[in-house]
Amino acid sequence: MSLPTPKVLAFDIFGTVVDWHGSIAREVDAMELGVPGGQFALAWRMGYKPAMQRVMSGELGWTLIDDLHRMILDQILGQFGISHLDEAQKRHLNKVWHRLDAWPDSVQGITRLKSRHVVCSLSNGNIGLLANMAKRAGIPWDCILSAEVFRAYKPDPATYLGVAKTFDVAPEEVMLVAAHHDDLAGARAYGLQTAYIERPMEFGASQPKDVSPRAENTMHCTSIVSLAEKMGC
Amino acid sequence: MSLPTPKVLAFDIFGTVVDWHGSIAREVDAMELGVPGGQFALAWRMGYKPAMQRVMSGELGWTLIDDLHRMILDQILGQFGISHLDEAQKRHLNKVWHRLDAWPDSVQGITRLKSRHVVCSLSNGNIGLLANMAKRAGIPWDCILSAEVFRAYKPDPATYLGVAKTFDVAPEEVMLVAAHHDDLAGARAYGLQTAYIERPMEFGASQPKDVSPRAENTMHCTSIVSLAEKMGC
Repeated sequence: MSLPTPKVLAFDIFGTVVDWHGSIAREVDAMELGVPGGQFALAWRMGYKPAMQRVMSGELGWTLIDDLHRMILDQILGQFGISHLDEAQKRHLNKVWHRLDAWPDSVQGITRLKSRHVVCSLSNGNIGLLANMAKRAGIPWDCILSAEVFRAYKPDPATYLGVAKTFDVAPEEVMLVAAHHDDLAGARAYGLQTAYIERPMEFGASQPKDVSPRAENTMHCTSIVSLAEKMGC
Repeated sequence: MSLPTPKVLAFDIFGTVVDWHGSIAREVDAMELGVPGGQFALAWRMGYKPAMQRVMSGELGWTLIDDLHRMILDQILGQFGISHLDEAQKRHLNKVWHRLDAWPDSVQGITRLKSRHVVCSLSNGNIGLLANMAKRAGIPWDCILSAEVFRAYKPDPATYLGVAKTFDVAPEEVMLVAAHHDDLAGARAYGLQTAYIERPMEFGASQPKDVSPRAENTMHCTSIVSLAEKMGC
């Protein structure tokens, strides 16, 4: 059975479209906090899944990622022994997640794909974070979709199927684009097509990531521009 | 007390950014259903507030505007004695609300305002409708906000205050842009700034609308381009 051409391409954001590690490392290094920015970025990101798990388990009520980021930030500032930041500085630092730089191919790739497909985000990030990020980085989304819209985080089926429902298309007419096999596996389980994007430097140059292809994905691409080329855009 | 420059401009859509009456009239006239397209458009739109009221009163559960439009369509097809459309034709006609044309000044005005402000929709229309409309008409939203995001229709405060919350700004840093004084009054009641846009032909050339200024609004403009000029964009 041949797959339909996807009408909607839904993009994972952190690591797939934007470089969270490099962006946070640069900003933290510039702040001269006395901790290597790359280590700080990794510690912050590592707190993310456990924090979401507390929401998904019901221990915490529905919480925006901005607020989870702040909870984790307060923890790691303590762990790294950083105690001199005032409230305004902490609020500003927490919003570094709104100021992440796109990978060099992201804007061109998404712009080309937009010519023939609906392009949207599908991120656990909150709407305001994703909108501020897109405006700053020049990412031309047709629509920002987020866990906040569906009141559920990926890999909850309400997110993947929510994209199809939003655009009134069949699940197989949606393709999730992500640099993470677990996210793609979640989408595939509910009938979406999947495109893996290689981001070997997601965790920084000192921790190269295995980006080997997996046969289960519909497509495997070295970049979003490469995806656009394969899709004829 | 001087008002702050608004960071976020939130636009009402139907009648303010797009010409629902003219667009539907043209499409219905082209279908040769035996009813004047302008009358059909008015009847459809007139069913809108009562249908939303059924949701707000709790008589109906949360319902997307696409589904409310379909309920009203089925009613007015009966009223106009139109019985020959099959299900696919009715589904296609119902989506005319996704294919509304922008007023001639809308895309230029919003594009200019986007250079200095966050520009988003704030409509009772559902997200998919607004995204399809924007893609077709070339409206460059930074973000699509909708009743669907807040699970409440305007004039519920959750919608107006939801814009401020989404972007983590004070209510007075948001300006609602609309061609309807009741919508602007709702926004003003919760602390938003307001810009009235004259759309004298909203209900068609045969029913010109009173577009007199009201002193309560922060700004009064003949078009969205005029708003951009007044805002220095």
